[in-house]
Amino acid sequence: MTPRWATGRVEAFSDGVFAIAITLLVLNLSIAPADVHDLWTALANEWPSYLAYVTSFLTIGAVWLAHHSLFVRLRFVDPALMRINIVLLMVVSLLPFPTGLVADAIDVSRDSERAAVVVYGITLLVIDLLLLAASRYAAKHPELLFEEGEDGPATSSSAGWRGTARFIAYAVAIVAGVLILPRLAALAYLAIAIREILSARGEGRMVLRSTGAD
Amino acid sequence: MTPRWATGRVEAFSDGVFAIAITLLVLNLSIAPADVHDLWTALANEWPSYLAYVTSFLTIGAVWLAHHSLFVRLRFVDPALMRINIVLLMVVSLLPFPTGLVADAIDVSRDSERAAVVVYGITLLVIDLLLLAASRYAAKHPELLFEEGEDGPATSSSAGWRGTARFIAYAVAIVAGVLILPRLAALAYLAIAIREILSARGEGRMVLRSTGAD
Amino acid sequence: MTPRWATGRVEAFSDGVFAIAITLLVLNLSIAPADVHDLWTALANEWPSYLAYVTSFLTIGAVWLAHHSLFVRLRFVDPALMRINIVLLMVVSLLPFPTGLVADAIDVSRDSERAAVVVYGITLLVIDLLLLAASRYAAKHPELLFEEGEDGPATSSSAGWRGTARFIAYAVAIVAGVLILPRLAALAYLAIAIREILSARGEGRMVLRSTGAD
Amino acid sequence: MTPRWATGRVEAFSDGVFAIAITLLVLNLSIAPADVHDLWTALANEWPSYLAYVTSFLTIGAVWLAHHSLFVRLRFVDPALMRINIVLLMVVSLLPFPTGLVADAIDVSRDSERAAVVVYGITLLVIDLLLLAASRYAAKHPELLFEEGEDGPATSSSAGWRGTARFIAYAVAIVAGVLILPRLAALAYLAIAIREILSARGEGRMVLRSTGAD
Repeated sequence: MTPRWATGRVEAFSDGVFAIAITLLVLNLSIAPADVHDLWTALANEWPSYLAYVTSFLTIGAVWLAHHSLFVRLRFVDPALMRINIVLLMVVSLLPFPTGLVADAIDVSRDSERAAVVVYGITLLVIDLLLLAASRYAAKHPELLFEEGEDGPATSSSAGWRGTARFIAYAVAIVAGVLILPRLAALAYLAIAIREILSARGEGRMVLRSTGAD
Repeated sequence: MTPRWATGRVEAFSDGVFAIAITLLVLNLSIAPADVHDLWTALANEWPSYLAYVTSFLTIGAVWLAHHSLFVRLRFVDPALMRINIVLLMVVSLLPFPTGLVADAIDVSRDSERAAVVVYGITLLVIDLLLLAASRYAAKHPELLFEEGEDGPATSSSAGWRGTARFIAYAVAIVAGVLILPRLAALAYLAIAIREILSARGEGRMVLRSTGAD
Repeated sequence: MTPRWATGRVEAFSDGVFAIAITLLVLNLSIAPADVHDLWTALANEWPSYLAYVTSFLTIGAVWLAHHSLFVRLRFVDPALMRINIVLLMVVSLLPFPTGLVADAIDVSRDSERAAVVVYGITLLVIDLLLLAASRYAAKHPELLFEEGEDGPATSSSAGWRGTARFIAYAVAIVAGVLILPRLAALAYLAIAIREILSARGEGRMVLRSTGAD
Repeated sequence: MTPRWATGRVEAFSDGVFAIAITLLVLNLSIAPADVHDLWTALANEWPSYLAYVTSFLTIGAVWLAHHSLFVRLRFVDPALMRINIVLLMVVSLLPFPTGLVADAIDVSRDSERAAVVVYGITLLVIDLLLLAASRYAAKHPELLFEEGEDGPATSSSAGWRGTARFIAYAVAIVAGVLILPRLAALAYLAIAIREILSARGEGRMVLRSTGAD
């Protein structure tokens, strides 16, 4: 018999990890007690932290949306997909660390900025690769999927294309950060996350099933 | 086909973020090791932290209640509502940061208090605006909603009115904090949160559906 | 129509807060970098932290069990019960703070120990009072409850008795901590939590309903 | 009547604790502000933290998988199993503490490394014993279990064998860490966690029940 897991528990656990990682990001924001005396200045100087917070929050939000789009089409999870998912969660959980690096390194020196922006970008790239790997694996194993309705395959192939475009965008941003200006990469990461949130189109026909109505 | 998401997963993820943000507030409370020797005095000096903790806890609690009142009426979530919800979660997750500012700034100087109280108040105002935006959007898109029973519209319009009153209350509190006394604003935020908790009236008829009994 | 909430969402949110508060306790455990050189000694000196960790973990575990015993008998939650529940969650979420105080104050001075142990004990006492208040309120409002089977009332009244006994035990422990020895109170809190865990008897007949079998 | 709990709530609470403990591990990763100036060097020096992060993440992931394999076969939870589960959660929640010790102690001195690696290993050993105790207890109380299909008993006894092998592996790793080289133990813990993730085979026939299809 094929080894497998029900999607419900895997999804609930993954959602828990996403929700916690996204909420822990706020711990990177703080004002040193010595700076409370001149609070407006201290708050203004923290702008790299806000940029990093918003970028990471929207990125994890977009990963959560992509994760859902995949899992809603799954009938069950097999061992290979389970492993990809655990590694994905491991890298997403790590994101508060490079987020803190970007927040701390901006305005220190060009070299520090570059290092932070590259480490952060590579983390995003790895997350993206893992999402792509999970989608590809599921697409190649139709026994894992619910039968597709008329919009299913389209959704799936457009997701594949969007994943590839995102991958290229991250790679270009990292290179631009190294060769041109680190802050350019930081802005590009934010732009990619916003674009992902804006283009998320939902779960398609699956919602019909659960609400039982159009 | 209209892009959309089932409400269950969105609600579960939002509840996770609310539960984590509300529980992380306690990390703002601590006594420096050097102050443990005279613990009663140190605990007494921490009063701004307790005020900030209670205010933020009750505020997030009230936001959670308002979020539920909205989502229980939704049949599904469309992309625009999903975006409002993600930004709402982003600002609610941020709340531990201004909560810490208020706790740290009170008793430092009048200027610091003012800055902290204004930043905190603006965060609450933005949360409120996002809740209002979500409610308004849902009200204007009846295809997102379950058909209303006799009490539905009333609930909905009274929620709109309460949201507007809350918005005005926050704005007045911020202005009073700037012009008169920062601590007045801090107390007003607490009073508004308590009032919201006290006036929460539940989900209405939806409960009947799930328990199948009056 | 009576305002009310379905129990499912309230329970899930409460469970989230309990799970996070119980897991945040570990953040009170740490070894200063300077002490890593002599790690066995540093670990041995941390014993008050382990005592505080175990006590608070088992206490929140016991509160979670008691919360479940109550909620499994509820048909829905009304505004008064919702308010008691939010205040209960607020005090449970606070527990990592007095847990840290006990861990830091033991071995500093008798006065610090006494203050920490009293603050910790009062927190436990307030949690206990809020649990009792929720149980009493539900018992006086039978419209909130599922109809009781043969074992229901017994469970309910024994829960009331156990709650009262626990309240007296906490009060005696606090007084002993003040008058005799603070560490006596610390051990008593642990003993009470262990006793609660050992005496938890489950949800009674409700399980039958969900599994559909004896 | 036998006291008992429905598995759903216990499982959801346990999953919450696992998800939070696994996500809190990232808080052990940080670069001191003074080291941001030379970020690449600082990041390279943090390698023990990455090793500890990956090991603990995969270990908690494996514990979560083992916990699921057990709970999916349970009809309900009795008081003894509830106690084992609460103690299991208490030790899993503790894991970020020894994880931080390993990260801090490596590269300080051989003695510190040894102490950290032994404390970490004993924590893993205790988690393993508690998982074994829960499995054994369930196996000896068939009234707690769903009736086994053709693959059930095999899964169960192979789980018992794997648990014993894991226990021996942890014990050998700890001894090797003390007698030979602490870092050998650190690598062995990682290898055991990877092996557990790679050999996880899912929940067996239970998935059929929920999807209603092969």
